[in-house]
Amino acid sequence: MPGSPDSTAESAVEELVERRRGKLHPAIARAREAVRATLAELPQGTTVLVACSGGTDSLALAAATAFEAPKLGLRAGAVIVDHGLQPDSAHVAATAAEQCRTLGLDPVQVRAVEVGSDGGPEAAARAARYDALRDAADELAADVVLLAHTRDDQAETVLLGLGRGSGGRSLAGMAPAVGRLRRPFLEVPRATTAAACIASGLRPWHDPHNDDPQYTRVRVRHEVLPVLEEALGPGVVEALARTAGLLRADADALDLLAADVAETALSRAEGEVRADVGVLTDEPTAIRTRVLRQAALEAGCRATDLTAGHVAAVDALVTDWRGQRWIDLPQGIRAIRKGGFIILGPDVTG
Amino acid sequence: MPGSPDSTAESAVEELVERRRGKLHPAIARAREAVRATLAELPQGTTVLVACSGGTDSLALAAATAFEAPKLGLRAGAVIVDHGLQPDSAHVAATAAEQCRTLGLDPVQVRAVEVGSDGGPEAAARAARYDALRDAADELAADVVLLAHTRDDQAETVLLGLGRGSGGRSLAGMAPAVGRLRRPFLEVPRATTAAACIASGLRPWHDPHNDDPQYTRVRVRHEVLPVLEEALGPGVVEALARTAGLLRADADALDLLAADVAETALSRAEGEVRADVGVLTDEPTAIRTRVLRQAALEAGCRATDLTAGHVAAVDALVTDWRGQRWIDLPQGIRAIRKGGFIILGPDVTG
Repeated sequence: MPGSPDSTAESAVEELVERRRGKLHPAIARAREAVRATLAELPQGTTVLVACSGGTDSLALAAATAFEAPKLGLRAGAVIVDHGLQPDSAHVAATAAEQCRTLGLDPVQVRAVEVGSDGGPEAAARAARYDALRDAADELAADVVLLAHTRDDQAETVLLGLGRGSGGRSLAGMAPAVGRLRRPFLEVPRATTAAACIASGLRPWHDPHNDDPQYTRVRVRHEVLPVLEEALGPGVVEALARTAGLLRADADALDLLAADVAETALSRAEGEVRADVGVLTDEPTAIRTRVLRQAALEAGCRATDLTAGHVAAVDALVTDWRGQRWIDLPQGIRAIRKGGFIILGPDVTG
Repeated sequence: MPGSPDSTAESAVEELVERRRGKLHPAIARAREAVRATLAELPQGTTVLVACSGGTDSLALAAATAFEAPKLGLRAGAVIVDHGLQPDSAHVAATAAEQCRTLGLDPVQVRAVEVGSDGGPEAAARAARYDALRDAADELAADVVLLAHTRDDQAETVLLGLGRGSGGRSLAGMAPAVGRLRRPFLEVPRATTAAACIASGLRPWHDPHNDDPQYTRVRVRHEVLPVLEEALGPGVVEALARTAGLLRADADALDLLAADVAETALSRAEGEVRADVGVLTDEPTAIRTRVLRQAALEAGCRATDLTAGHVAAVDALVTDWRGQRWIDLPQGIRAIRKGGFIILGPDVTG
């Protein structure tokens, strides 16, 4: 049964009373409201874990969650991931854990991880962090993990996706909810979490990595966004975050529709994937290319190597057929048109 | 009958020979190839008009078109729009016209326009220009008008769309083909058109507006793109242009699918538009919101005033129905849920 409407209403009323008395800072109210909207969807008795680094955003999230969860009949703890990337990381983690306990979160767990090097320092740290969050959630029987990404993080993610040029999905930013993860602050500005910390007397840890221009995200934050705002006017961060939401809905719909078409269009036979030209030909480009992309992935191409250009070349076998030869794809896969089919596999030209 | 494959092949062979002799600059070859791909789709005897300002991009387009069109059995002329915005604009237009005639284009027409002020200086100039191009095409019985927008223009358009935050369509940039308009250079870098002009001994006019930071597009070009390239690495312009193409395909597909659903979901009765909740409710968000947006426009909302936020509020009447009251939309339109319908109009709450 979802968090009872009564307790949600109670919390909102309490807040209104506090606010009337001039006690509740609007930033704290905004943070709590965002957390409440996320938590209200959960059944009573659920355990939620705040992923907390001790930084501004996640400390504000910890405070808002500690306040809201009990009112909704939820159990709220925290997990602090110690990436071991800085000499004082264990101390930083211990301090954050202590802050979470003081806020009333329980259980609070620190998990030390080893960061590899796959995909660069940012990707490797992220992979290690998400693994640790999953393990903590398993161990503490948590149903939901709350992440503190803000609207500014979302805008940065969109700009990082622009550099890839791989279309709508890469501009769709981070999902508000995926698996056990929830991001209550995805529409909350970073300035609000900072103000909430100050108003609550919380002292966030300042991660020196957040100012290190060797990280692409830091350059986007400190160099690109200010220039973009200067050129396009204020509201760019908000516009980027809104764009992410709209493109996510578009990409979800097209993926769903393409999966439907793939059901009919694709068939498999020993090491080969076949796409039925007759089924594909009347579909719009956005659907056709998604189905062909899926066919190439099933045939053995790696997602990271398969470009929009590859897929467009395969699509030309459907839409611009002039008897051309096969198309070479990554991982030695080839696509060739034979009869009414595009056949994809390692050995289709033999 | 489309431009004959023989003449296309002939032109390509001729170029190869010239290139082997070391005579043809690769930039000229690239420009011609792009124009050839566009013109090859047209039936013999078609009249095409190059929209030429005398600037680098459109002069390179005029030269490539003058070279390619006759080989494909097409008649190629030019139209120069004199916006009258600068004291020497008549002289600039006359010079461009003379250059087009020297290149062998015929007919060549200069059209003077009066630029209004609706929507700001850039939008007003654009509106006057497109009107003049349409009139010229009508008068000279041209079937196609060629525009010289480059890949860089496309990237700038995507960034300008980001500032609006209104989703996929606003990031889809300019269409390669719409109505009578064609944009052969949409995948050609600006550096290529500049090199083609130099290699051909053409002397383009330099529009001082192109350096005037009062124009948003100029700020995007000279301030945002260099910083973005610095932060994300080279290839940003290409990535943005590629993104535009992918998002255009996505938006086209979703608009098509939404139009299908709207056929069933929407009905009209004296001053009201009704959307059938039963039909909408199983559709994905991207389709539902498009149909509801169309309903609001049909009910009388202006596209420029209707935001994604408005549409999301109407959508909540479908997906999150808790007996809430009506939604206020622009132009005094309201949306209300009654029975199994969302009813939109000026008077639906009476």
